[in-house]
Amino acid sequence: MTPASARMDNPSLITVPVPLGERAYDILVGRGLIDTAGARIAALGARAAAIVTDEHVGPLYAAALTASLEAQGLRVSMITLPPGEATKSYASLERVCDAVLAARIERGDLVVALGGGVIGDLAGFAAAVVRRGVRFVQVPTTLLSQVDSSVGGKTGINSRYGKNLVGAFHQPSLVIADTALLDTLPIRERRAGYAEVVKYGLIDDERFFAWCEANWQGVFAGGPERDEAVAQSCRAKAAVVVRDEHETGDRALLNLGHTFGHALEKLTAYDSRRLVHGEGVAIGLSQAFRFSAFLGLCPPADAERVEVHLNAVGLPTRLSQVPGGCGTVDALLDAMAQDKKVKGGALTFILARGIGRSFIAPGIEADQVRTFLTGEISA
Amino acid sequence: MTPASARMDNPSLITVPVPLGERAYDILVGRGLIDTAGARIAALGARAAAIVTDEHVGPLYAAALTASLEAQGLRVSMITLPPGEATKSYASLERVCDAVLAARIERGDLVVALGGGVIGDLAGFAAAVVRRGVRFVQVPTTLLSQVDSSVGGKTGINSRYGKNLVGAFHQPSLVIADTALLDTLPIRERRAGYAEVVKYGLIDDERFFAWCEANWQGVFAGGPERDEAVAQSCRAKAAVVVRDEHETGDRALLNLGHTFGHALEKLTAYDSRRLVHGEGVAIGLSQAFRFSAFLGLCPPADAERVEVHLNAVGLPTRLSQVPGGCGTVDALLDAMAQDKKVKGGALTFILARGIGRSFIAPGIEADQVRTFLTGEISA
Repeated sequence: MTPASARMDNPSLITVPVPLGERAYDILVGRGLIDTAGARIAALGARAAAIVTDEHVGPLYAAALTASLEAQGLRVSMITLPPGEATKSYASLERVCDAVLAARIERGDLVVALGGGVIGDLAGFAAAVVRRGVRFVQVPTTLLSQVDSSVGGKTGINSRYGKNLVGAFHQPSLVIADTALLDTLPIRERRAGYAEVVKYGLIDDERFFAWCEANWQGVFAGGPERDEAVAQSCRAKAAVVVRDEHETGDRALLNLGHTFGHALEKLTAYDSRRLVHGEGVAIGLSQAFRFSAFLGLCPPADAERVEVHLNAVGLPTRLSQVPGGCGTVDALLDAMAQDKKVKGGALTFILARGIGRSFIAPGIEADQVRTFLTGEISA
Repeated sequence: MTPASARMDNPSLITVPVPLGERAYDILVGRGLIDTAGARIAALGARAAAIVTDEHVGPLYAAALTASLEAQGLRVSMITLPPGEATKSYASLERVCDAVLAARIERGDLVVALGGGVIGDLAGFAAAVVRRGVRFVQVPTTLLSQVDSSVGGKTGINSRYGKNLVGAFHQPSLVIADTALLDTLPIRERRAGYAEVVKYGLIDDERFFAWCEANWQGVFAGGPERDEAVAQSCRAKAAVVVRDEHETGDRALLNLGHTFGHALEKLTAYDSRRLVHGEGVAIGLSQAFRFSAFLGLCPPADAERVEVHLNAVGLPTRLSQVPGGCGTVDALLDAMAQDKKVKGGALTFILARGIGRSFIAPGIEADQVRTFLTGEISA
């Protein structure tokens, strides 16, 4: 490891501020940032840190992170959980909260989430409720968590009634996104995370989508394009979060592709061997544009362009690409309607008038969705 | 039951506003308010309500509350838990959250806490985290919860590492304190709640303390004095909470009597047969004033006056009054220091320069506390 003092001047470092008043924080993006994470985290002023990680990520990075925090004089403890979505449970919440309390973390101290979205969501939620709120730092280790879940303060666990149904809005004090960690990420996970990158272009930034079309190979290869893609995604998400921290309006735009995507995840029983979140989102993005075109809202050429790009990077875009199938139209519609009562009536979708021109569309009739899906399933 | 329209003009109704900006709410105090609770809660605009209660309180009031909410067109469900402090657990949190989700409570809907402090703290915490926050209403049924825990937004459960160590700041949308419900409260619980009433006078309102000395019998008997005592306590607490919602400063004054009190609860193993919270607080209030006098900060006559009044209503004031004893000076000191490292150094206490003149006193030497306690234990 290079000495912290030298590496603090990381030339590739991009800082994305999240200006949320007294909850403002920075997202740091760059290669090799984990080497100087100790100094950066210590600069927040804590005396102790509890690292929360999983059995995949911990063995790779936790020892170095612990050493760099201890070198700064922090008392460090570690909580290691099994990897996977099942870890976002009430039982894990109890385990993490009690471990954080056992580590004598006080209000001025820190919880450090070292891992992907599961660890970030769980550790962030524990930080939100231990002593009614201690600070926390996100060190996301997957592309998906670097561009999405580590930013914006949504934390939580799953309930038997659905994903992320129990949680808190709790902003991190710092996000450190080391893009070099993605070098060892399986290609399937890199692609899945990339679906969320593309999403930001599709929501309201046609130029960024065009940049993705031209630069995606650099993003996957780990060149400066990757840092730029992560940073731009964080900027886009931060802008939405600053406008609507608690999701009472605009923040719903971030769900572009997710109404379809969540339904597909549900119908594949959240079995990551069949479909991971980002793959569901990729199909969902394509479906949202195809549905918008079906409704006459969006030029078919734009829907085509979305699909071509997602396919180019190796992501699925059609219902028929769901391994094992996605069930019947009725099952899909059921899964999309959170409440059975909505079925006979109207649903809210995020639709688009074109690439970069998404909008919240309440009042979409279930019959229109049914007709569209019938065509898609047989396609 | 009188029709809601008539009873809404309850002549004995006292409204205490809690002006917390977008989290502002009212505390309603008066006899018989539970009869019109349905209309008042429905006025908040929800479509559904999940009542959380316990096996003692539920059978007394839940059916009437349910009926009055249903009469207003709300869909109502009920979750009934065992009574007692053990219910403030992770397991109960899971049970309440899942029941609230099963009841299809959405962000616009309500959780209604019907019970004492345990139910209010637990239901409030569940409301804070289900869907990252749904609204909730407190219907406190004990004097302690009417004057203390139902106001101010502190919610939570206990951990093996201590009480209330996991929770959230989540303000209720309405508090309905029906003082008639206290008529059937055992005298021991009425006395225990009264210790918190007296506390507000001791903190910063000598006139209210004098009013308590003159009117306590009316408070216990259930006359208009009771409504006034509850309302004045809520006003006092609300004023502190508005100044310092998240307890970064002044709110600590509300802990007057609680450093000693919590230590005594801990040393009696939270066994309510030996000591209930309010009894610990009564002894703690007296000890805080006696310690202030010992340090030369407070006139001994004021400490005497505190003790005389607490004894008059039947509350304990001395360490020797703890049934089964409170252990050694070292055990007491240990229990008071949250962190072993504090032992050799300084502690923070809430002390007083006289009745109504309390202040936060950091830097109290452990040796001074030891000398004081040695005298008290042998007294």
